[in-house]
Amino acid sequence: MNNPLPKKELFDIPSGIVYLDGNSLGPPLRQISRQAVEVINDEWGKDLIQAWNSANWMSMPRIVGDQIAPIIGAQPGSVAMGDTLSIKAYQALAATLELRPDRRVILSDSGNFPTDLYIAQGLIDTLDRGHKLLTPSPEDVMDMINDDVAVVYLTHVDYRTGRLHDMGAITERAHRHGAVTIWDLAHSAGAVQLAVEETRTEFAVGCTYKYLNGGPGAPAFIYIRQDIVNSIRPALSGWLGHRDPFAMAPQYDPARSTERFRIGTPPVVQFKLLHFALKIWDQISMSDIREASTRLCEQFIQEVEGRCPSLELVSPRNALNRGSQVSFESNDAYSIIQALTDQGVIGDFREPNILRFGIAPLYLDENDIVRAAQTMESVMNSECWREDRYQVKKQVT
Amino acid sequence: MNNPLPKKELFDIPSGIVYLDGNSLGPPLRQISRQAVEVINDEWGKDLIQAWNSANWMSMPRIVGDQIAPIIGAQPGSVAMGDTLSIKAYQALAATLELRPDRRVILSDSGNFPTDLYIAQGLIDTLDRGHKLLTPSPEDVMDMINDDVAVVYLTHVDYRTGRLHDMGAITERAHRHGAVTIWDLAHSAGAVQLAVEETRTEFAVGCTYKYLNGGPGAPAFIYIRQDIVNSIRPALSGWLGHRDPFAMAPQYDPARSTERFRIGTPPVVQFKLLHFALKIWDQISMSDIREASTRLCEQFIQEVEGRCPSLELVSPRNALNRGSQVSFESNDAYSIIQALTDQGVIGDFREPNILRFGIAPLYLDENDIVRAAQTMESVMNSECWREDRYQVKKQVT
Repeated sequence: MNNPLPKKELFDIPSGIVYLDGNSLGPPLRQISRQAVEVINDEWGKDLIQAWNSANWMSMPRIVGDQIAPIIGAQPGSVAMGDTLSIKAYQALAATLELRPDRRVILSDSGNFPTDLYIAQGLIDTLDRGHKLLTPSPEDVMDMINDDVAVVYLTHVDYRTGRLHDMGAITERAHRHGAVTIWDLAHSAGAVQLAVEETRTEFAVGCTYKYLNGGPGAPAFIYIRQDIVNSIRPALSGWLGHRDPFAMAPQYDPARSTERFRIGTPPVVQFKLLHFALKIWDQISMSDIREASTRLCEQFIQEVEGRCPSLELVSPRNALNRGSQVSFESNDAYSIIQALTDQGVIGDFREPNILRFGIAPLYLDENDIVRAAQTMESVMNSECWREDRYQVKKQVT
Repeated sequence: MNNPLPKKELFDIPSGIVYLDGNSLGPPLRQISRQAVEVINDEWGKDLIQAWNSANWMSMPRIVGDQIAPIIGAQPGSVAMGDTLSIKAYQALAATLELRPDRRVILSDSGNFPTDLYIAQGLIDTLDRGHKLLTPSPEDVMDMINDDVAVVYLTHVDYRTGRLHDMGAITERAHRHGAVTIWDLAHSAGAVQLAVEETRTEFAVGCTYKYLNGGPGAPAFIYIRQDIVNSIRPALSGWLGHRDPFAMAPQYDPARSTERFRIGTPPVVQFKLLHFALKIWDQISMSDIREASTRLCEQFIQEVEGRCPSLELVSPRNALNRGSQVSFESNDAYSIIQALTDQGVIGDFREPNILRFGIAPLYLDENDIVRAAQTMESVMNSECWREDRYQVKKQVT
């Protein structure tokens, strides 16, 4: 085995824990808190307002965008950072509807993450021009792409099942029908190999706190195909997307670059953490990630199916159609997840009945997979998940 | 003098510095970096995904909103937190235009901060319904409020001159003419006494990294008058504004509260810093702040006018019409600010010719004011600001 993964030494996962929820929130890198201390005490504390220049705070979004770019298969300068995925999705969607003013269909799917759908619903109501959001089953999307579609608006890897859309084929068909595309890479960036630029998609968006380990609420990203960037009118026209923000001109005049997708003052501390977390990706090959992910996912499926026959696989069995997570169905999914967590195996529950396990090869190995499956077997056989304490719904699932 | 301010012991301003730029970026409180270490190492590091519940991360925006509320004269539960001021302004403006669907005028002024104007310009183009943004001189706003105005959209304290709008009178006149109001409190919160709720304004927005010392890029706030909150359709309809986000329902259904103005995943580390920074306000009376601010501003004006006759005051001379900053004009403003900074007196430059000095009574006293004025006198008399190195424009001014 020549694959250099995992790199457990980069992390301080608490001992006794098998962490299968890095698809929701990646763990902190070792020493990442030092970055926070440095930015707070040395930059903010010593340089005060001047740190915007001296510590390069104002350029952090561009610097971090250039770290994201190779991870998603894009060139430097094509990724803007900031805000949250919801806001980045709004920016992309508003832009695409203006690019296709005569079309009224937003084609998504029923597996898209709710915030993507909600953002579309809100924008449709704001515009009040009769746009329609279609959410067929993921399997039916391809056939529904036609000349009425303004934008194909999908999450690449389904947050519940891990099902992977064929980004290249869908984008190509969309373009053939004159539609534009937005890919949400929340569950893809750092998890699967991506060639965003090669697909010629107009937009991609994503978050950085899952497989990229940027920390809770880390800034989101938006990729814009560079041949169209300067023809796009930013709907969220904040001052830091201005061509010359500190001219304080009365009229908005967007930057002649990806920077026009910046909006307001960047959360500098979160940016510093993310910047640090992304440094490790210089040394990591996405093909090693994918190879290890596939191997560990297959091992996990085999182990769990062998040990827990009552859990039904809902992720695609074929690795080519699956991201870096494995999900099972059970009517008792919520309680089982609580019991597993108590025994040190952390996955999560998704409505209505899904046990979801993220497989992040940066910090997981074969022993973790066996340990997780053994614990699942023990929980299922003992039925300890029936205990009252595992029935209480928490605020965040 | 019974005023307990300043409270210099709360801060670690570098020695030799007189910091007159807390209106742009407040300094860090002592020990604030410990908060970052705690959230990163103890919460994120140990509890991983579970920290969303165990460390109450998901409730941080509400908890912090309830800290902001008394500072601006609002009740608990009426302030939502997150994102940036630009986004909060967009949310408010989109809502107000829907509240007055038959009106087309957004009345702002030429002293409004650019991002507020840019956001309005962007929204007008998105809606494409013939809305007009008017930007008369601040002095003319009152007379321009009439029955055509959908929304009066102003920054309370002018970022350049420190001129203070009469929030009560303008809001009252706007309401008399059937218009709604949005007040940007970026330069007011923590600087002047506010009675947001008493004015009956529908919306107020603001940032927290100036007089509230939340740190670079700290989350912004939005206040919504509680009798209308549930009738407002959020234009930026992200999942965390949903009534039940973790139900992952396909249809957006906003929270029946101020929480509907939440959008995406909160930047938890920045929230923890802000939460810590706001704790000191329990012990601070806004009337003490205002008294000290007025006294120090008047002292500063007197000292500078006495020592630097070539600098012309552009802030209102009457404290009742002024926020907590003092600005002067000079054709050489940029270079003078650079030279002052080099000598430990930190203010900032604003286009086209303004020297701007924020007076934050939390960490400034009479000696600082004298020291600043003496340094200004020395810089003006020596003309050291003419040196080449002070002519170079930096990225951030």
